[in-house]
Amino acid sequence: MFKLHPVLEKDTVAVASLALSRVLLMNDARFPWLILVPQREGMREIHKLSRADQTQLMTEAMRASEILEALFAPDKINIGALGNLVEQLHVHVIARFTTDAAWPGPVWGYGTAEPYAPDELERVRSRLVEDFG
Amino acid sequence: MFKLHPVLEKDTVAVASLALSRVLLMNDARFPWLILVPQREGMREIHKLSRADQTQLMTEAMRASEILEALFAPDKINIGALGNLVEQLHVHVIARFTTDAAWPGPVWGYGTAEPYAPDELERVRSRLVEDFG
Repeated sequence: MFKLHPVLEKDTVAVASLALSRVLLMNDARFPWLILVPQREGMREIHKLSRADQTQLMTEAMRASEILEALFAPDKINIGALGNLVEQLHVHVIARFTTDAAWPGPVWGYGTAEPYAPDELERVRSRLVEDFG
Repeated sequence: MFKLHPVLEKDTVAVASLALSRVLLMNDARFPWLILVPQREGMREIHKLSRADQTQLMTEAMRASEILEALFAPDKINIGALGNLVEQLHVHVIARFTTDAAWPGPVWGYGTAEPYAPDELERVRSRLVEDFG
């Protein structure tokens, strides 16, 4: 059975469950940052997914990109599948700004997460829930 | 007409031209590192590609992942589309090792590229040309 990795569980809040992926919001107010986790047990690499799941993952990552773009009007979307630290397959979709702390570098490994204030986290999360709904 | 960005031109050698993407090998001996550039003029974001092109890009990125895996037996494949510095849409597919210089961090922005020796570059390139052929 699929179970979310405890590190992803700890660092994020749940936004939606799509046909393939669970959508999570990183609790890091520095960057609007979604994580898609394909609900397939023991998966580490996108190329090990079935062809149908790969296409669905692309569709869902594009939906996440479009929602972030509409909501935050970023300068750039960054997408990445690394998994060097957390082995469970997950895809990052991040709204980047030329004014953000890590620009133009990648966000991964940059500084330390700054959790949202509780009411701000709930505001962003509920807006995302609505958009994915 | 599609024209490769001069920075990508400078930092890589050509490997293949697939249905959608040009495949390039980064001239950086620290990491086996491919770059896929969809041959669509003025494109910056994957979500702006047509749905058919998105699916094709996924297919081609998976082929790149499988070729790197078969050739280098890495511990992890990293995939990323950033474009914060080079605006032309391009997708990185990188073979990572727990023993490589940047592990477990991302390769982007890490240190300075170390060009291959000319004969080593040609050896790796021609092997990749064969595999994509």
